[in-house]
This record gives sequence, C-alpha cells and structure tokens, in this order.
Amino acid sequence: MNENGVRGNNPASTKTLNGTGVMENGFHHVNGNVSSYPAKAKSRRQRWDVKPSEMANNTLNPIRAIVDGMKLTPNPEKSMIALSIGDPTVFGNLPTDDAVLEAMKDAITSQKFNGYAPSVGYLKSRQALANFYRCPEAPLEAEDVILTSGCSQAIDLAISVLCNAGDNILVPCPGFSLYKTLAVSMGIKVKFYNLQPENSWEANLQHLESLIDERTSCLIVTNPSNPCGSVFSKKHLQKILKVASRHCVPILADEIYSDMVFPGCTSPSMASLSSDVPVLSCGGLAKRWLVPGWRMGWILIHDRNNIFGSEIRQGLVKLSQRILGACSIVQGALECILNNTPQSFFNSTISFLKSNAEICFSELSTIPGLNPVMPSGAMYLMVGIEMDHFPDFKNDVDFTEQLVTEQSVFCLPASAFEYPNFFRIVVTVPEEMMVEACARIREFCQHHYRSCSRDSNDLDQ
Amino acid sequence: MNENGVRGNNPASTKTLNGTGVMENGFHHVNGNVSSYPAKAKSRRQRWDVKPSEMANNTLNPIRAIVDGMKLTPNPEKSMIALSIGDPTVFGNLPTDDAVLEAMKDAITSQKFNGYAPSVGYLKSRQALANFYRCPEAPLEAEDVILTSGCSQAIDLAISVLCNAGDNILVPCPGFSLYKTLAVSMGIKVKFYNLQPENSWEANLQHLESLIDERTSCLIVTNPSNPCGSVFSKKHLQKILKVASRHCVPILADEIYSDMVFPGCTSPSMASLSSDVPVLSCGGLAKRWLVPGWRMGWILIHDRNNIFGSEIRQGLVKLSQRILGACSIVQGALECILNNTPQSFFNSTISFLKSNAEICFSELSTIPGLNPVMPSGAMYLMVGIEMDHFPDFKNDVDFTEQLVTEQSVFCLPASAFEYPNFFRIVVTVPEEMMVEACARIREFCQHHYRSCSRDSNDLDQ
Repeated sequence: MNENGVRGNNPASTKTLNGTGVMENGFHHVNGNVSSYPAKAKSRRQRWDVKPSEMANNTLNPIRAIVDGMKLTPNPEKSMIALSIGDPTVFGNLPTDDAVLEAMKDAITSQKFNGYAPSVGYLKSRQALANFYRCPEAPLEAEDVILTSGCSQAIDLAISVLCNAGDNILVPCPGFSLYKTLAVSMGIKVKFYNLQPENSWEANLQHLESLIDERTSCLIVTNPSNPCGSVFSKKHLQKILKVASRHCVPILADEIYSDMVFPGCTSPSMASLSSDVPVLSCGGLAKRWLVPGWRMGWILIHDRNNIFGSEIRQGLVKLSQRILGACSIVQGALECILNNTPQSFFNSTISFLKSNAEICFSELSTIPGLNPVMPSGAMYLMVGIEMDHFPDFKNDVDFTEQLVTEQSVFCLPASAFEYPNFFRIVVTVPEEMMVEACARIREFCQHHYRSCSRDSNDLDQ
Repeated sequence: MNENGVRGNNPASTKTLNGTGVMENGFHHVNGNVSSYPAKAKSRRQRWDVKPSEMANNTLNPIRAIVDGMKLTPNPEKSMIALSIGDPTVFGNLPTDDAVLEAMKDAITSQKFNGYAPSVGYLKSRQALANFYRCPEAPLEAEDVILTSGCSQAIDLAISVLCNAGDNILVPCPGFSLYKTLAVSMGIKVKFYNLQPENSWEANLQHLESLIDERTSCLIVTNPSNPCGSVFSKKHLQKILKVASRHCVPILADEIYSDMVFPGCTSPSMASLSSDVPVLSCGGLAKRWLVPGWRMGWILIHDRNNIFGSEIRQGLVKLSQRILGACSIVQGALECILNNTPQSFFNSTISFLKSNAEICFSELSTIPGLNPVMPSGAMYLMVGIEMDHFPDFKNDVDFTEQLVTEQSVFCLPASAFEYPNFFRIVVTVPEEMMVEACARIREFCQHHYRSCSRDSNDLDQ
C-alpha cells in the first residue's frame, strides 16, 4: 500500500509517489502507463485442466442418484401415473387461491416492487409474517423474520450459520434428502436418528440422544414429515425439546408443512413449546399455498432465552447478502397473500389430502406384503414392503422400477430418504388416479407375492 | 447395516433379524419398540454455546462494512440525494416496459407456472435465452443455459463449480464487491488486477498476467464495468482472452450490463471472441430490463473447445439443486419478456443514462480537485479525488461522509470497491437531481479545496 492506502497503481494518488514505489505485493511499480511486472517464479498451467470443485462433486442428490439409475419404461398399454413428485400443482387439481393470484397481479401493477429488496426482505413483508405466525407462547417481531428464496434457501442459511465443517447434525430417518445434500457439500457430517413407523413415525428418543456429541451443532426436526406424512404430538415434541435442552443443541425446525394437518390433529410449532431451546423455524408459501415454484421461503428466529443473541442473527443477515433472497414481486404480494387467503381454501386442500390418503391407505392395507402407514398431515404416505414376500425383487428400488415397467405407476423408493424397503406415495393426485394407481399396485403385488421367500426357513409363515 | 441394507430399526425388515442385531454404528439394537442405546463416552455440551459458523463470519460485505461505519447525517436544510444505490428503480424515473409487466401477468393468469421448475430452469425459458443470446461466433443451445436466482447466484454457482478452497481467482480492481465476498467465504483467495483509469479503465495486462499461478482457477472480467461504467474494446477483450488462453484459465464473464453501452460503442460478449477459452457468462434481467428485485439471472456456458466438458456442466446442475433457482413466474414470463420488449425501450434507457453521464462528467470535470472518468455504458461514473488538495479529509470515506453532512449528497466511496480515493456516482437519478447534486458537489469542493496540501513539499504546485 502507498501512503494513501492504495493497492496497485492509482493515478488519483500517484502524485504523492516520487517516481517509483514498491507495492505491498512486492511488485516493482513504475507510475504512468508503463508498468513492469517481472515474470514470477511460480509455475503456471501449461494445458487446460478444468475440473469441478470438491463442493460440486460433493453435492449429491440421492433422489436424482437413485431415479436416474432406474430404468423407467412404462407399460405402453397403461397410461403413466406418477405418485412420485412432491409438487401439488402438477395435475392441475390443486390450484392456488384466486386471492393469491390477485395479490401477485397487484404487486406487478403497482410497479413498487421491481427494485432490490433488502437482503433479508422487505420490512413490511417480514412484519406481515411475524403477525401471521406469532402466538403468545412464541412471540415474533419483523426483525425475527428473514425472507429467503424458497424453504431450501432457508434450510441452507440455517445450516450454514450454525455449522462448521467437521460438525455434525442430527437428521430424521427417513427424512427429506436436502439436509444431507447441503451438509455433506459443506463438510458437515450427518447422523440419522430413527423414526419409528410402528409409533406413527415418532422419533426414537434414546437413539436420538445417543448420537449427540460435542460437535453436534444442530438438530433438524421435520414436522409434519416429508416423506412420512406424520405429525408429532405436542407431548412428543416436548420430549424432543427436552433432549435438545439437556444437551444444548439448537433446533432447525423444518415446518414447511405446518398447519397442513388432518382434522382432529394439531401441530404446534416447536418454538411455541419451549422457552429455552433456540429454534430456527423454516417455512414458505410452497405447500400450504400450493405455489412451490415461486420460491418464497422464510426463517423465523425464536430465541427467547437469548442464546442465538445478536451473533447468529447477524450471521444470518450476512449470509443473506450472498445472493439476496426471494423475488421482490412475491415479497410485495406476501402481506395480501397471508391476509386474504380464505380459511376455506386451506380446509378444502386438507380435506382433499385426507380423503385421498384414506383411499390409498385402506386400499393398500388389504394388499398382502404391503404395510402402509396412515399419515396425519402433509401430502405423503409411506408404504413398507415385506421384501421376503417379494423374492422377485432385490430391494425397494427394484420393486418400484418393475412397478413402472408392468403397471406404469411410479412411486419413489424410500432409499432416496435413507430408508430402504419402503416407498413413498404422494397423495395430491386426482382421486380417480389414486384409485386406479392402488388397483394397479394390488395387481402388481398379487402377481409377485409369495407366501414365503425362497431363502426363508419358513419362520415367517 | 442389516442384510436388507437398512440403517437403524426398520420394522418392514425386522422379520429378517432374529432378535438382536448389532448395527453399523456399533449400537446394540433390540428390535421392536424397546431400544437401548448405551450412553456414549463422548463428552456433550453442558451449557449453551451457539456461535455463527466460520462461513458466516467470513461472509464480509465491504459496502456494508464501510457504509455502516459512516456517520450519514444529512444537512437538514437540504433534501437528501442518494447517488449511491445501484438500483435503477428507486426514483421511479426508469420503469420497466409494459410488455414486461404484461408477460408477468400472463404467466400468473395461466396458472401454468406455480409448480417446481427444473433446478436449471424451464427448458422453454432456457431455449428462449439461447435464441436471444446466440450469435454465429458463440452458438448456444438450451442445454448451455442455467437459470439462477439473480445474477448473484449465477456468480455464486460459477465460482463454486470452478474453485476449491486454497485456489485463487483474479478480480478486477476496482470491481464489484460480491466476487470477494463469495470467494473469501469459501476459502478462495482473491487477487486483484488493476484497471487503469487513464486508459478508460482497461486492465493492466502485465499485472493481470503476473498474478496467475497454478492455483488460479478463474479470471473474472466485468464488462461493461461496475463501478467504472467502462466498456472494453474488442481488441482489449481479445488481449485478455489471450492471457487466459496462454495460462489455461477459464473466464467468468460478468455481463450483467451487456448491451447497456452508449451509442457508438460496442460490447461484444467475451465468448464471441474466443473459440478456445471456456467462458461462463453471467447475466440477468436486472439491469437491462430494470427489474433487479425479480432475481432472474442465468449462466450461459460457452465451451466450444470442450474444456469444461460434461463435468463442469454436471457440476453446475448439481449445485443448482441445492436451493433451486429463479421464481417460476418470472421464468414462465421470460420468453415473452425477451421477445416482446421493444428496442425503443432499451434505446430510451441508454440515451437517458448517456445524457445524465454527460451532464455529470462535464460538471465535475470543471471542479478543481476532482477527476471524473467518462463512462461508455452501464450506469456508473467514477470520480478520482486529488486527496492532496483536500487536506480536510483523510480519505474517500471521510470525503463522502462530509459531503452528506454538508450537502446531503451521498456517493459511495470507492474503498468499497478496493479502490480508495475515488467515489462512484450512479447516473440513474432524474436529471434535475443530477444537476443539483453536481452543483452541491461543486460547492463542497470549492469550500474544501486547497491549492496544495498542508504536508506537501510544494512539488505538486
């Protein structure tokens, strides 16, 4: 640096240099237009050798890895039914509410939302979210809200701010694959804690607790669950919070399916049940408002015990400045979307999902060799495969692949969720497709079911 | 793992276990609902200690760091004029075109774009971009296009795929601060190559070349330039490409201001000038279509020599799956936006920017102590400060801070672009504000100008 703190040659200040200066980086520097930078000793590349970074190589999407490896050739005599896609909009039977569309058009017409929003989102939109989600047990102010490009970025920011390479995070198994994808790409270790299908997919708390060590920097809880469609009871959530509290592990609550619970069931937010455990609650418009493509997500910061303090908040703000967040039009429409979407819209979505889930569950329950688990919310249903009774298939991937070949029905093998020998059904398809799909699955299973496996010693009969 | 490849307890497969199994992780595992996980020897946290990650701590925004440290108290007798914000929409004098708004409303009304788009964007939108930007010298197909959440994410993905921690990248100085923010947070070193104001901000090629070593994984070229408003000639771009070719360094071309050049000037894309150097060209709707908040960006992959090959492409696809990209509504509108925005809209924006830049340049040129550099494009103008003649101020930060205090005019000190003793003016403000701002800057400079500095030995006079 020269006396003006200038790096490199900078004519506005060269008048203060008397001819030649030695720069910080050791280059001899001649002022004016002629500079001479001696060749460096360092070796340089002699030929092209451009390889993707470790981070790119370590960004693994298990769903893609598995699905891309499958031979998905449907039976040409049967129309394809995809029960695999976690996108409620694909069949057109679940449009978003008109109030949501109107809010967007108004935001566009106003021309007020074309410029950069603050990296954490418009204050007014953050305030609207705080108003929408606050409750006496979990107060929220605008400053507790960070808007993100979809719930995926919310999860990315939350993991990024809490965890260093070498740390580990606790992730539900089965669970949404993105947690592992993000963590592994950042050198963060993933420890899976088991959910128990025989207990409505409640977490095995002993297992969960046994995984915690001094490098555990975050416990992820997905409630309601993708891929299970399960909803934790208040009591179970409290038990999880107790474990977190006992070992001082903050919680990333993936609550993207919050309030998507079937009648008779409740899903309190994690933050509303604890006054000491700090919680980053991740959510978005995607599922409840049925617009996943819009990439409107958020983090709600709950920290009543002041454990995150200003540091984690500041960290989130800094991380939000890397690529900025959600589209300003959706941000501008957010207040109206939250306030104007009628309750009847949500009720109708949920009642459809419940009805479809019941159809699917009751159909599959009577198919020998399958063990569906009735969901209580979200839009999924998991089905256990008694592999011993299907000796034609090596595993769930093989099973679901052949289901496409024979019946043109595609369900995601739960290996994609680190949970082999199950498959996941998305219950957002139109009812007649759900009925038809179940009938085809029945035909498929009846065709392949054996009362005992070839290798079994008949103990199972 | 048990024989079905199952991690943890998994009832669908427990029939194949004969009572007790030892799991991969060494836990003794009792099947059924009762599991026993012995307490582990590892220590656990006894009290809360949640700190932001290194990545969060290392995500530094120099603009915020500098601006947040400034005392920006305007003169209450003068209305504030902010020439600091690189957002062309803030004053309302540069609305986007009606065709752009119509395309968005149509996309909303169609209800076809509410679901998840592919992580790299809708094929049709990518095709539209390929059609829009291809030229005989730089062919483009849909598969060469990746849609991103703003140009920021495009830059993030491009750096992320090309660079590992420990690598270095070459960044223009002065230059857009995001490159350094992203790189440093990922442990990538930044080497600044000097742009030369006396040569219309052309790069010092000797300096640039001297910085290259075997860990140089990317050369960033911003053209047209933020913060300089300069536009490299075809010849200069070819020289830069020669350096890249000689040392086998791929180029990240930040071309967000492409085609925003004043009449008489041309700005060929880097990719159109080279058939061997691989180029990731980053762009977006933000500036040319005047909708920066919409976060619609892209990467155009130019690789005629097949140096990136499928590996870098696959790496980009994998990275795009982390948080997905742009809002599906904007993606859905993209084809119409590209095809229906009239040339007259662009012409009128550019002619306004040029006129304002000329007003600003000709006013500031006659102010003793200031050295404005006339831009050729983008929406910025850099002004050198002869600090020796302003002994009241320590540096550009001090200078611009006092300009707010006395004249209520805020310009960004170029320290924010690693280039002290300059400040940047944004020329998108309404003409009358530009005129008024220049008059106030004149008054300010006249008040503080000294014909020689206090510490000078009079050599400068």
